[in-house]
Parts: sequence; structure tokens; C-alpha cells
Amino acid sequence: MSRFKATYRIETSHSLEEAAESMAGEQSSGTFVDVPGETDELRERHGARVARVTELDTVDEPTLPGSSPPDDVDEPESYTRAEIDLSFPMRNVGSSLPNLLTTVAGNLFELSPFSGLRLLDIDVPAALADAYPGPQFGIEGTREIVDVWDRPIVGTIVKPNVGLSPQETADLVETLVDAGLDFIKDDELIADPPYSPVEDRIEAVMDVIHRHEDRTGEKVMYACNITGDVDEMLARHDVVKEAGGNCVMVSVNSVGLTGLTELRRHADLPIHAHRNGWGALSRCPQLGFEYAAYQKFWRLAGVDHMHVNGIRNKFCESDESVIRSARTCQTPIVDEGDTVMPVFSSGQWAGQAPETYEALGNVDCMYLAGGGILGHPDGPAAGVEHLKQGWEAAMRGIPLEEYAEDHEELRRAIDHYGPVGSGR
Amino acid sequence: MSRFKATYRIETSHSLEEAAESMAGEQSSGTFVDVPGETDELRERHGARVARVTELDTVDEPTLPGSSPPDDVDEPESYTRAEIDLSFPMRNVGSSLPNLLTTVAGNLFELSPFSGLRLLDIDVPAALADAYPGPQFGIEGTREIVDVWDRPIVGTIVKPNVGLSPQETADLVETLVDAGLDFIKDDELIADPPYSPVEDRIEAVMDVIHRHEDRTGEKVMYACNITGDVDEMLARHDVVKEAGGNCVMVSVNSVGLTGLTELRRHADLPIHAHRNGWGALSRCPQLGFEYAAYQKFWRLAGVDHMHVNGIRNKFCESDESVIRSARTCQTPIVDEGDTVMPVFSSGQWAGQAPETYEALGNVDCMYLAGGGILGHPDGPAAGVEHLKQGWEAAMRGIPLEEYAEDHEELRRAIDHYGPVGSGR
Repeated sequence: MSRFKATYRIETSHSLEEAAESMAGEQSSGTFVDVPGETDELRERHGARVARVTELDTVDEPTLPGSSPPDDVDEPESYTRAEIDLSFPMRNVGSSLPNLLTTVAGNLFELSPFSGLRLLDIDVPAALADAYPGPQFGIEGTREIVDVWDRPIVGTIVKPNVGLSPQETADLVETLVDAGLDFIKDDELIADPPYSPVEDRIEAVMDVIHRHEDRTGEKVMYACNITGDVDEMLARHDVVKEAGGNCVMVSVNSVGLTGLTELRRHADLPIHAHRNGWGALSRCPQLGFEYAAYQKFWRLAGVDHMHVNGIRNKFCESDESVIRSARTCQTPIVDEGDTVMPVFSSGQWAGQAPETYEALGNVDCMYLAGGGILGHPDGPAAGVEHLKQGWEAAMRGIPLEEYAEDHEELRRAIDHYGPVGSGR
Repeated sequence: MSRFKATYRIETSHSLEEAAESMAGEQSSGTFVDVPGETDELRERHGARVARVTELDTVDEPTLPGSSPPDDVDEPESYTRAEIDLSFPMRNVGSSLPNLLTTVAGNLFELSPFSGLRLLDIDVPAALADAYPGPQFGIEGTREIVDVWDRPIVGTIVKPNVGLSPQETADLVETLVDAGLDFIKDDELIADPPYSPVEDRIEAVMDVIHRHEDRTGEKVMYACNITGDVDEMLARHDVVKEAGGNCVMVSVNSVGLTGLTELRRHADLPIHAHRNGWGALSRCPQLGFEYAAYQKFWRLAGVDHMHVNGIRNKFCESDESVIRSARTCQTPIVDEGDTVMPVFSSGQWAGQAPETYEALGNVDCMYLAGGGILGHPDGPAAGVEHLKQGWEAAMRGIPLEEYAEDHEELRRAIDHYGPVGSGR
């Protein structure tokens, strides 16, 4: 492929074609002023092209401040939204993920014709994807580690968010593994703080997990938050590995694309990507990034699991957006090898399992619950069990209330968290 | 300092105090559900506190979609904006820049009580700042390299944005150094593409710059765009240095915080920070980041120059915001050693020099012009000269029109780009 495509939603008071051309120019060989060296040949070889303009709705007020009207207009009467495709020459970027990002999501957010500009998706060139390792474990490799195949990987987050010592964390993990969880992750607010260094925490937690495995044969995955500077992350990865750990977690926005890439090239363990900070890039619908575009960068850089929020979550995201995000994680960029496991969390209990399963069409996900496990009236083991029962019901197409008739933990959960169709 | 402070602007239909408390809770020891381990002692040691709530204006419609009203309200009548300070225990974060970012700008953008949430500023703890090298050259060190002391460093960007071969770039640089420029930078869209590898480009460009220095004694700084993966950036830095180069440029958002930190720890050259992508983080006034907060992370990580746009720029940013950004770059975080050079660019000619000088109160900046140099009716040398004359006039408090009476290049520029008070 000698060209690649990026898709945007724009909002502008200018003609859609002119506005789209200004984006294509700014992000390739154009500039605000005619430049001697910008020959026709150079423009032909390096210019981005407007490949599609599809008009959407019109609004009376600009979503974002600061845009300029066309020269011959004082006060625009309306602002038109459109979906557009820009086509870029591969040769402009080379095989570089950060430079791809600059090209498709750099200065253009600030261009004056636009009162809205959002990157919706990007067709990543295979040649560029090939230059990056991608997920090392992905869906299959993650399942192998925990040996769970026919249902979602059920997990939880160590809480309270901050403040537990390594031993207190391990004590809580003991409760959680005894409850039958497949997966436990650190909170994003705990990486290597003075009160819980990774080295001590992983030692204490893996001791619990290894003893549990010796006793039961069950292998629990623990995503240890190693977020830090590059050298710190590499060293912590090694510490986790040496302690027999089986997953590292990273706050990807805080670390950035090249730090994550560097970790991936070094790593022997799955990388669990926490997307905190994502709201700043996405919450204004006419600005920033759609998850479909955003998550591709991290997958190519090499994460194995990506958070997607959950249906009826406690945050601001719509269910429809959550499902779109989860599906996009399971959709190949170049091939199946680059798909990753979507991680559902926030306000989850069995109540959302049927809709999640229906929307996803498979069980290749992590399904995390906090209060949905620890808050179960009969304790954490019943909390875990009710989640597994909820997914069983979903997979068999049996309504939760019906399945609960002979599944006590689910019945108690419906009484406590329900009704079915609510969030926790 | 055992605690540090972050300042936000929020918009919510909830009581301001409750909303602020929910932020403090989510970003420290709180969670959506009562958790056994969250004892009073833990909350005392690790809880974030609401240190200030200052009510601002009220709006009828939510800025961002997806927020939830208080439980007892169906449809909020209004949304109140406020400025709030949260105080965090240092021990929650330790000395880690990425984990600081997760703490002050992580999940909280998605919290459901908020229809707006923007990080305005952060008091970075000195202990954390001390753990990072900060700028290696800063204002003073940059001036030393080019030996320009009593006015802004006048510069330009290699144009067209993309497509020039190394030799074509060097030919253009020859024109530019002959014109008397102090500083030349690559476009952010050219790093190491197949048609212009860093290795070839730096060789060709530095040959021109060295010959110019031999002839005139003038030392020109060339910011070579080395944006790439970590190992690529370190290698390219070395290539630039070996070729006698004196500056590297990085698209900081594309590289990320830890990649930049890693480069800084390796670097012997000034790091010129290009902020492309910043619009996605900032253009919605009730979301994302204020520059005051944003730039501190990059300065601590170690950049030396930071782009701030320019007065009457071609983008969407207001002059007032541009000036605030420039001033904040010159304001110590911990001490003078961590200040950096603000880089003005976009639509600049001498016409904005008086206001820029008045607002800044000093000349410790880079002042970049593209069309304002190459578009001068008497050629690039007159373009550079008119910029220097404009700044002389500004520093002496002489109106540009008056100074132009006996400064030909400035007079011609006013005729061409003017009137004074306009952008280019």
C-alpha cells in the first residue's frame, strides 16, 4: 500500500471541500503561504488528498471556540458537520508510529476553519504495522496463562485505590484468589509509591498466588502496575518476571507511545493497558479521538489488553460507545495476531452480561467487577460465582431471572444489585 | 512538601462541594463502594482533600455530554462552573512524573458528575522535580550556542512541510543562513522519512551551517526533527551530535512523557519541543489541560524550548492564551534552572513584536516566521532584518511606523504585511 487513509468528523462554516483541502495541505506539503520549493511534482509525490466528503448535520452554534469564518462572511449562520477521508502517501511517514500520529493527529486540531475536528479511524499501512511487534500474547496467549477458555476472564481491582502496604495487598489478594477470580489488577493510582514498592508487592502477591496454584491448580493472573520512566518500567518488568509474575500493567497515556513501545520490545509478559486520561482526548464529541483510531496505536505498539469501560458504567460513556470500543479491539488491524482483549470494568455485575455478550458475539474479554464481587451479600466467592453464572446464562441465551431460579449466587445478586437491566 | 496541589475548572449540576469530594475520592483512596480496607487511618494518610472551591458562572446547557444529575434531580436547571484546588499526599505518587500525571489527570475526566473538567495548574512537589533533570540548556544555554543575547532568537521553519530531499533542504538552509537567521527548524511532519533520513539531512545541513560559520563567525542553530521510537531517537541524537549539530526537535505528544525523559537523560543537545496534537487536549475550554499545567510535565522531563503559538496566529488560539503560555514557560517551577524558551510562531512578522514584548516584558524567546521572512518583497535577508528592526523598535518603545521611517526593511514589510496590528 503506497497510501493510507484517515477518517475525520469535522465541523466548519467553510465549504466542506475547501476545509478538507486545508487539512490535507497543512498535514502534507501545503503551508499558509506559497513557498518556492513547493513544485507540482513535489505536491504530486507528497500531497495528501481529500478522498471523500460526506455531509452530515448542521448546527447553529460552533462546538469549539476560536474558529474563523470564510473571508467573505462576518458571522456564519451555521456550521456543517461532515465525515471526510484524507489519503496520505506512505512515503511521508515511513515506518514510524509516532510520526504517523503527528501526521494524522498533529497541528490539524487547531486549524482555524474548524469548530470541530475528531479523528475517527485510520487505515494503518501494513508496512508500518510490520515494523512494530504488536501484541505478544493477545487473546489466545492470555487465555493460555490462566487456562480459561470458554467464558470471559473474570477479574477485579485491588481496592482501596491507594494506601495498602504490600502485605495488606497480598492479604486482600488471598481473599480474592480464594473467591475464585482469574485475574486481579492493581489500581492505576498505585505503581511504585514509597509505601508499596513493586519489588515488595510482587513478592508478597505472587507468594499468595503461587500457594493458591499449588493448592488448587488454578493459575491467577496479576497485572502489576509498573508505570514509570522507561528504565524503571524495564527494571520492574524484570522484577515481576523474576518473582514469577505473569502480567504487567501500564497507564498508557501517562507513559506515552514510545515508552510503551520500548517496554514491549523488552517484555516477556502480557501488557495490560489502562487508558486513564482517555476522557481528556475523547469526551468532547467534536474533538480529539474516537477509540477506533486511538487503540490502534497502542495495539501496534504492543499491548495485550485494553480497557473499554462497561455497559451502564459509572462514568460518562454511552453503552453504544463502550460496545464499539470493545469490538474494535477484537477487529484485526492487519491480521488476527494484532487483536487484543477488551477489558470491561466500572459498575459491572452479572446484570450487564447478557447485553455485553449479545453485542460482542463472543466471550473473548475480561470482565472486571469491584463492588460486584466484594459487595455481594454472601461474600466475594459468591460475588465471583454470580458473575460466572451470569455469563453462563448469557451464553446459553437464558434470561438471568430464569437462570437464577436454580443458581443461588445469581439470585442473591439480582436481589441485591438488580433489577436486571440496571448498573451496580 | 508532604502534599501538593492541583487546580481544576469544573462544571457540574451537583453541589460543588460534593462534586469536588468525588474527584478527591476517585483520585485517592475512595471508590464507588465502601471497601473493607478503607480505614479512617488510611483515608487520613492517603486521601486527597478539597482545599478550595471558588464558584464561577452558571450555564444552562452542559458543555460535555454524558454527565449525570444528582440522584434527586431529573433534569438539571443549570450547571455551575467553579475553580477548585485538590491537595494530594506526596506519598501517593512518589517521585514519578507519569504517575503524577495519572493522579492529577487520569480517570477524573470521565467522572459522571462533571459536564466539564479541565486541569488548570499543578504545584509540582520539589522532591519530584528534583528526581528529573529538567532543561539542560534552557534560555541561557540556548543563547550561548547561538551567541545572541539582547534580542529574541529569530528563526524559521524549513518549508514546504514535506518532500524536500536532504540536498534540497540544505540548499534552502543556505538561503536562510545567508539571510541572517539565528535558528532553523524542521517541520514536524519530517523526521526520518525514506526520502530524507536524518543521517543524510543533518550531514547536508550542517555542512552549510559550518561553512557559514567559517565565513561569518555566526553560529546558527538547526533543530533536527528526530521524533521516533526511543532507540531511534537516541541513535539519531548521536548522529546529529557527531555531525556537529546543535539541537534536536521532538513532537512531544507523539513521543510521550517517558520517551522524552529517556531522550533527555541521554542527550547532550538542546531539545526543541513541538507541541503538535496539543489542540486535542486543549481546544474545548471545559476539558483537558491548560498550558500552565501541561508544559510543566515536559519541562521537568527536560525540554529546552516550547512552542506557544503567536499573537494573531493562523490557528484558533486567542492572543491572551498565547501570552499566558509564553509567560508560564519563563516562570520557575522550582527555580530559574527549570525555565525554558517560549517559541512564538504562526503568522508572525514584525507587526506583533511590540505587543509580544510588552506582554512578555523581556526578549527571552524564539520568534519564528515563515512567510514573514520568505515572503518579504525584498527577499529573505530583508525578511530577517525587518524582524530584528521590529524587535529593536519594540524594545526601545518606538512605534513601528516611526521606526520604519529610517529602517527600509521594516517600512517595506509594513507596506506588504501591514497595517501594524494585523497578522501576516
